[in-house]
Amino acid sequence: MTWSTAADAVRRSEATLTVRHADGSPCADTEVLVEQVRHDFPFGNIGFDFVGLANEERGELRENVFGGADPEAAERLEDLWLDLFNTATLPFYWAGFEPVEGQPDTARLRAAAAWFRDRGVSVKGHPLVWHTLAPDWLREYSDEDVEKIVRGRIQREVTSFAGLVDTWDAINEVVIMPVFANETRQNAITRLCRRIGRIPTIRLAFEEARAATPATTLILNDFNLSTAYECLIEGVLEAGVQVDAIGLQSHMHQGYWGEERTLEVLERFARYGLPLHWTETTLVSGDLMPPEIVDLNDHQVDEWPSTPEGEERQADDVVRHYRTLLSHPAVEAVTYWGITDRGAWLGAPAGLVRADGTPKPAYDALRGLVKGEWWLAPTRLRTDGEGRVSVSGWSGDYTVSVGDGSGGFRLRPDAPPQEVTVA
Amino acid sequence: MTWSTAADAVRRSEATLTVRHADGSPCADTEVLVEQVRHDFPFGNIGFDFVGLANEERGELRENVFGGADPEAAERLEDLWLDLFNTATLPFYWAGFEPVEGQPDTARLRAAAAWFRDRGVSVKGHPLVWHTLAPDWLREYSDEDVEKIVRGRIQREVTSFAGLVDTWDAINEVVIMPVFANETRQNAITRLCRRIGRIPTIRLAFEEARAATPATTLILNDFNLSTAYECLIEGVLEAGVQVDAIGLQSHMHQGYWGEERTLEVLERFARYGLPLHWTETTLVSGDLMPPEIVDLNDHQVDEWPSTPEGEERQADDVVRHYRTLLSHPAVEAVTYWGITDRGAWLGAPAGLVRADGTPKPAYDALRGLVKGEWWLAPTRLRTDGEGRVSVSGWSGDYTVSVGDGSGGFRLRPDAPPQEVTVA
Repeated sequence: MTWSTAADAVRRSEATLTVRHADGSPCADTEVLVEQVRHDFPFGNIGFDFVGLANEERGELRENVFGGADPEAAERLEDLWLDLFNTATLPFYWAGFEPVEGQPDTARLRAAAAWFRDRGVSVKGHPLVWHTLAPDWLREYSDEDVEKIVRGRIQREVTSFAGLVDTWDAINEVVIMPVFANETRQNAITRLCRRIGRIPTIRLAFEEARAATPATTLILNDFNLSTAYECLIEGVLEAGVQVDAIGLQSHMHQGYWGEERTLEVLERFARYGLPLHWTETTLVSGDLMPPEIVDLNDHQVDEWPSTPEGEERQADDVVRHYRTLLSHPAVEAVTYWGITDRGAWLGAPAGLVRADGTPKPAYDALRGLVKGEWWLAPTRLRTDGEGRVSVSGWSGDYTVSVGDGSGGFRLRPDAPPQEVTVA
Repeated sequence: MTWSTAADAVRRSEATLTVRHADGSPCADTEVLVEQVRHDFPFGNIGFDFVGLANEERGELRENVFGGADPEAAERLEDLWLDLFNTATLPFYWAGFEPVEGQPDTARLRAAAAWFRDRGVSVKGHPLVWHTLAPDWLREYSDEDVEKIVRGRIQREVTSFAGLVDTWDAINEVVIMPVFANETRQNAITRLCRRIGRIPTIRLAFEEARAATPATTLILNDFNLSTAYECLIEGVLEAGVQVDAIGLQSHMHQGYWGEERTLEVLERFARYGLPLHWTETTLVSGDLMPPEIVDLNDHQVDEWPSTPEGEERQADDVVRHYRTLLSHPAVEAVTYWGITDRGAWLGAPAGLVRADGTPKPAYDALRGLVKGEWWLAPTRLRTDGEGRVSVSGWSGDYTVSVGDGSGGFRLRPDAPPQEVTVA
């Protein structure tokens, strides 16, 4: 098995359909056209850029804390985004979402989530609890009140977005949370976490979100993929907190990790038997950030251009990274962090599309996997005497057509034999 | 408050005694001689060097895995050791303690523990569970059997040494335990820990030891003082495992950490409200180990001499380290790791005594604290009209003498006024 076939070996399955005419008779010995229309696997990206567009904020520029294109630019990105991704992460950074206490940005974010849903895209919320971008006004409260307000915020968001957002980063970066010191005034979440401990803080986030919307997928997310995160996860699971997926960030502004390191991380975190979500993947198409930077936020440059060599490297890196991740059966979602260089976090050329709106080689390379190698393009197959045909592909939605008639089916590794009526 | 007075400010207390003659009458307006005879604070060192001596193994050389002087050399070290330390760590490394299954070195270690006890020294056992130096024969068993055998070993050791060993490192270095890879064949403890998880492995060690000897002090010990250890501790406490003290190693072969880093570590681990034991302190009096070495065991040199400059630095470092540790109220024990350079771990000149048996400046410097600055030398005081005298000193055992008569008392911060009869 090679890298180019490993993901396929893990993800591909075969289904046998019986294709029938509208009258129930089998389409026997017939040429049928089968094609994939959607991946089940969540190929995600941030949807920050489209919040303004979804809200028809033309001409305005409302800054997103973690970047995003202006609505005019976003319009030109829409097709590129939707052609490649089926899952959007929307920003619920508290300081931005509720800059004034009691005035949350609910309506605007609901519009954005509905915009994606209407285009067949699943929506994930990020994050419910995080020390960074905790609102300033929260600092004025006592730890006891902070806890109550945090609980209220969680409950409010998951309830307000029920039916629109089905996955949440319940809590973000707890390894560093109680010892976070890269700020001039300590934020209230760090203070609370230091007081009550990491696991009680995590429990608070998960229990509150779970109680409000039991069916939601709740993720524990971190950039720290060291032994510390293992120890934290083991403590959380031992404490009986129900975590639905382990979130692993991979902002690789300092260079692609390579297959070996990535697999080592996968092996260490897969052993908890939980789905792994690669929640935040970044690969730049320009100079790499110097390796000595510890907090990526500390690297501030005036200009960070995308370069031709950088773009080639980024395309290679993206393919290697996605091949590696998808080859591991524990990986159940991968989210890229940025569609465009316009307004990208840290000004990094991390987008798959240049600031001028043209796709980079990395975009095409990733599309070559998601909509090429890992996708069933329209394919002519022949049914047998009972109308049966065998289809091999990745889990997802498919159509089968005979002449003018067509029907849909879902391909799943564990699905029973299916009947499809083409009408 | 300066560094030279900070420890004193934390540790010193004052007691008022009433000194009485044998007939009960107060020794009024009398000059009395008060002196300290023992520190309560555990000033520890390893006692590995004295196992052979305690067993009268003259002429033999039975190698200790982690070093130790031969019995002849140990004899010359005895007074130096006993003059400075009151707590000995004895080696229970499983591979050395039970090289052949079913033939533990119990009698020999009991003799060593009794030798120390007879000299007024408390004994600590190190460690009950550790992946390094797990016996080779253990590998042949299934995980299930390994767990049973580990439980049996814990029970056997704490029971056999009840009354002789009152403190155990219940488990050692669990942060790295399940992912430890610096060995050609995986040991059975790593295998077990990886299978059942860190916290269940810790629970196993503590519960088994606690059940066998409830009054024993049980320590969770690690060299990894990063956030990972915090996360592990939080998980362990959240899981309800009763940890008596957090063990922090400080093998500083690569150089003294300095006050700032040491205090930062103290603050991070003190917040769990548990006593902190600095279980393994090393400071070398020769070249420093290069900073790029990660596992200290990987640094193998033919010769690692003690140098005059190195000895001066070591003396300074020892004083700074002990002053820093003792200044923090959470620190309840400090163990130095090695009395002599003879047979020292890694061949490092980490001893307080040179290989030729002469004390280094670090020995004298540490003695200057433990038996000087932090000690009440014989001091003449005068009682008042009711025989009362006020004594200021560190917790410990003291005597008060009047003429030929004397009596003992214990000084404690929270002790009620005491009556001492000099007879």
